[in-house]
Amino acid sequence: MSENILNTIQSPKDLRKIPKETLPQVANELRDFIINIVATKEGHLGASLGVIELTIALHYVFNTPKDILVWDVGHQAYGHKILTGRKEIFHTNRQLGGISGFPKRAESEYDTFGVGHSSTAISAALGMAIASKLKGETNIQHIAVVGDASIASGMAFEALNHAGISDTNILVILNDNAIGIDPSVGALKNYFTKVKLNGAKDADNIFEALNFDYSGPIDGHDLELVISELERLKNVQGPKLLHLITKKGKGLRQAEENQVVYHAPGKFDALTGDLAPKSNERQPPKFQDVFGKTLVELAITNDRIIGITPAMPTGSSLKFMMDVFPERAFDVGIAEQHAVTFAAGIATQGFTVFCNIYSTFLQRAYDQLIHDVCLQKIPVIFCLDRAGIVGEDGPTHHGIFDLAYLNCIPNLIIFAPRNEIELRNIMFTAQQGLDLPIFIRYPRGRGNILDWQKPFSKIEIGKSEVLKEGIDIVILTLGTIANNAKEAIETLSSEQQEKIGLVDIRFLKPLDETLLHKILKKYDKVITVEDGTIIGGLGTSIAAFAVSNGYKNKIEIIGIPDVFPEHGTVSELQEIVGLSPKRILQVIQNYL
Amino acid sequence: MSENILNTIQSPKDLRKIPKETLPQVANELRDFIINIVATKEGHLGASLGVIELTIALHYVFNTPKDILVWDVGHQAYGHKILTGRKEIFHTNRQLGGISGFPKRAESEYDTFGVGHSSTAISAALGMAIASKLKGETNIQHIAVVGDASIASGMAFEALNHAGISDTNILVILNDNAIGIDPSVGALKNYFTKVKLNGAKDADNIFEALNFDYSGPIDGHDLELVISELERLKNVQGPKLLHLITKKGKGLRQAEENQVVYHAPGKFDALTGDLAPKSNERQPPKFQDVFGKTLVELAITNDRIIGITPAMPTGSSLKFMMDVFPERAFDVGIAEQHAVTFAAGIATQGFTVFCNIYSTFLQRAYDQLIHDVCLQKIPVIFCLDRAGIVGEDGPTHHGIFDLAYLNCIPNLIIFAPRNEIELRNIMFTAQQGLDLPIFIRYPRGRGNILDWQKPFSKIEIGKSEVLKEGIDIVILTLGTIANNAKEAIETLSSEQQEKIGLVDIRFLKPLDETLLHKILKKYDKVITVEDGTIIGGLGTSIAAFAVSNGYKNKIEIIGIPDVFPEHGTVSELQEIVGLSPKRILQVIQNYL
Repeated sequence: MSENILNTIQSPKDLRKIPKETLPQVANELRDFIINIVATKEGHLGASLGVIELTIALHYVFNTPKDILVWDVGHQAYGHKILTGRKEIFHTNRQLGGISGFPKRAESEYDTFGVGHSSTAISAALGMAIASKLKGETNIQHIAVVGDASIASGMAFEALNHAGISDTNILVILNDNAIGIDPSVGALKNYFTKVKLNGAKDADNIFEALNFDYSGPIDGHDLELVISELERLKNVQGPKLLHLITKKGKGLRQAEENQVVYHAPGKFDALTGDLAPKSNERQPPKFQDVFGKTLVELAITNDRIIGITPAMPTGSSLKFMMDVFPERAFDVGIAEQHAVTFAAGIATQGFTVFCNIYSTFLQRAYDQLIHDVCLQKIPVIFCLDRAGIVGEDGPTHHGIFDLAYLNCIPNLIIFAPRNEIELRNIMFTAQQGLDLPIFIRYPRGRGNILDWQKPFSKIEIGKSEVLKEGIDIVILTLGTIANNAKEAIETLSSEQQEKIGLVDIRFLKPLDETLLHKILKKYDKVITVEDGTIIGGLGTSIAAFAVSNGYKNKIEIIGIPDVFPEHGTVSELQEIVGLSPKRILQVIQNYL
Repeated sequence: MSENILNTIQSPKDLRKIPKETLPQVANELRDFIINIVATKEGHLGASLGVIELTIALHYVFNTPKDILVWDVGHQAYGHKILTGRKEIFHTNRQLGGISGFPKRAESEYDTFGVGHSSTAISAALGMAIASKLKGETNIQHIAVVGDASIASGMAFEALNHAGISDTNILVILNDNAIGIDPSVGALKNYFTKVKLNGAKDADNIFEALNFDYSGPIDGHDLELVISELERLKNVQGPKLLHLITKKGKGLRQAEENQVVYHAPGKFDALTGDLAPKSNERQPPKFQDVFGKTLVELAITNDRIIGITPAMPTGSSLKFMMDVFPERAFDVGIAEQHAVTFAAGIATQGFTVFCNIYSTFLQRAYDQLIHDVCLQKIPVIFCLDRAGIVGEDGPTHHGIFDLAYLNCIPNLIIFAPRNEIELRNIMFTAQQGLDLPIFIRYPRGRGNILDWQKPFSKIEIGKSEVLKEGIDIVILTLGTIANNAKEAIETLSSEQQEKIGLVDIRFLKPLDETLLHKILKKYDKVITVEDGTIIGGLGTSIAAFAVSNGYKNKIEIIGIPDVFPEHGTVSELQEIVGLSPKRILQVIQNYL
């Protein structure tokens, strides 16, 4: 191999000067570069490795950034970032102050649309294509790159349905690797499999039916072929779709063989691909595993239990139930809207349905929560993983709105467990039967209890828990953030500590009004702490309760201020937004 | 014609005893019955007339309610209601205390799933089908009836994608009349048209591609044919779809010829079909028309303006712009998610995009608002029609959550015009260019200003307006509900009136903090009034602001309490929830 070419590419302009026959070397170097950095800095791996050839071909053929390229989801855009001037800072990926793990408009003119959640790219690209048309810019190309798991989501279908009758030349590239984070599911996936096996016959072409010019499927790792296809499609008028077959993790054996693990593998050996050895030290469990394992435990004795996940069997740990009770556990794909109403449908027939959705993705099913679940008082049990600040995935993924957007809906229960045992016990309680839907929100990552698999005990709905009595200051917390408040208190002198009460509110809804009356009578000063937006959550509920009942307490609300938190570690971000033990301590000290 | 048969049908059991050859008479009587009642009581007309034969056939062939029938949207279910024991109370349709205009679980065991918003039926029916399978109930049939406009929405696609690989016998009936409320749009609609013209060839069958057994298209008004098809499909294993061609408004000439108007025509002559004559009295405009006409006015001078509606050109009055500037106004179909991100895509290219969505339907695009619009600070102008209590459409349609679900999102402006002129002026202001997206919410129905087409003037963002100074009580309102507060004040003695200040907050975000400080210092007692949920809206924001700033005012929050308001007239419902002038007056009097 000749000397390093990647170093000479400051922008796609440089790439386009490279002779076509040298591009495979660029691909090799780009792959190595990504592997080497992600091996130590962590991040998403498999998706970007799978689109190396496509990324090079797109920037080679199209005149980016004038031609507009929108990546769907965007965790596959590492190669794109590196080729568009961010190679030198790529090692800061996902770090506080570093580049984002997703395309981001503020970061580069090549990042035409911010992404993170799936299935938005076609809508955005179509908007841009229509804008170009109105401006008379006939030479600009508009390309959306969408995975096969993502294109099965309703929003993508809505966009295809519109694009198909639009008078634009939008190009949708279907990056078909048969996997999202977990393997793709659904009828469309089976259809793609059939197309791959039999070739694209004319019969039943779903994209042709939607008035797209369909081509493919072709090997997405055949750089020459991909380039020539893209060149050809440049001149095809009307909406068109190119079906590429790629392999997630391409070029790193283990990543190809174990695609789920190597989606975001953590640290690994860049040479061998081996994962970094796990610590032998016994660790508290991840909350997702508390959910997953507890659900299996409960499902063994309660055969009415059903589990549902929209495309997150691994991330939610519903896979444990899918392994043990495959007929009672459903991965419905990236289809949060369907997941929620499907759950409601099952629950009307007397089943006890656990529907696990990341807090940030539940935003996709907001109408279904209101209209199909709460209005009808159907007692689905929602488990909201990744609630609160999630860390490195950043603003597209923080689960910080759920408290506010749920709080305003009638007929529901909102609970945030303080620890692993509370999560177990609320799941136990909920499956015994409730009259209303319940929303159980818990954070990403690990708890802090090693021996969490205790016998179940029932939690009284709507009952808060006094963790510590005090004298004139009380801290009201919701969920695991209680630990930060506790840590803050424990740094004080014992005399000071005596003054401060600590109450875990537990239920944002129904509020424990009996206890709140006692609290507001006893303590002059109240501090509320929540891992969610200040507006609309615990703090504002307490404030409204207090003033409506004529209390005159001083109330300080701690939570996510009215800006989107950036990416970084959870503790870095907690420090910034004001939720770290240190920052909570400052508020307490102002009161002392 | 023999004597009335409809009167003998108390339930589908009675229907099933009627000889097949007499069913056309049932169809005639059912049609007449609906026409006669809707002519005087108002309600949705065309959709139910279009499915009379289907409704009879379904209850004739299937063993409802044991067999499970889910109507999508549900405003076509009048015939279903009448045949399932609600004939005698059908005249109470949509009235306070009467039956709902939509299927509702609490109302009848035949209403298997509450509906109102579109595209939920397949998800719900699939959930029920899978529940039956798990229970070993092999004899139960599960049927979802979905219109062609509704099946094009993303949620329906998600459900089809799942149903296609499910091991169930779900039957989806596609009720294809080529119209929702307005004519259907999109590539799928064109595809259906092609199928109707050419017959269902094997090529490009979108439903076969999704692993459905497809049959049709057949004439949905040929009762014998529909019955025999349904009989046949009873024994077809696996997911299947029957494509029916129907005519909206079937059986009433004017309703067939003018389908948009006769969707919900108001009062009309049951014999002739003629609409009730309009009053000659000059009336204040509907807010939707203020939007629609003002948009055209602005678009004439500002050629960067784009208009978008998801399937509501008539209801939102975007049709005015579609008529004048067809290339700059887009009906994207029932696709709120796509509408929002599509709007964002266009706006990134320097256009000024007005995206008009009913408040209740914007719930469908909540994630897109957060993730695609606000996070990126893309200044789309959202106009939220039907905000607040909407009246007879009831709990599925009240637009009461928007203030709360928007308030917690960073980077946005929330404005509620007090009257027609304010709506005009905020539209004028917004199209001059803002740094953030703005959400303008206004109610269903008419304003109260006859001469509303005044010259434009600019509104200062974040500035509240003092309508009346007072002494020790102040009422803070948001939007048109100010009129109710004003009316309440005006019933007091002039001495009492002097005590009461009235402030139109106008901007829920950003709050006019300068003015709020003055208000909280000046007035002891504060009453907030908003046509939205008490939780999370204006009142809680004021409460949080007050306590966080150490104010000790007594604050009373008036708004929608934490239950779903039922259906009824707007003024009846305002009386019930506490927003009528009378109820506001009571609160004031408690303070006096």
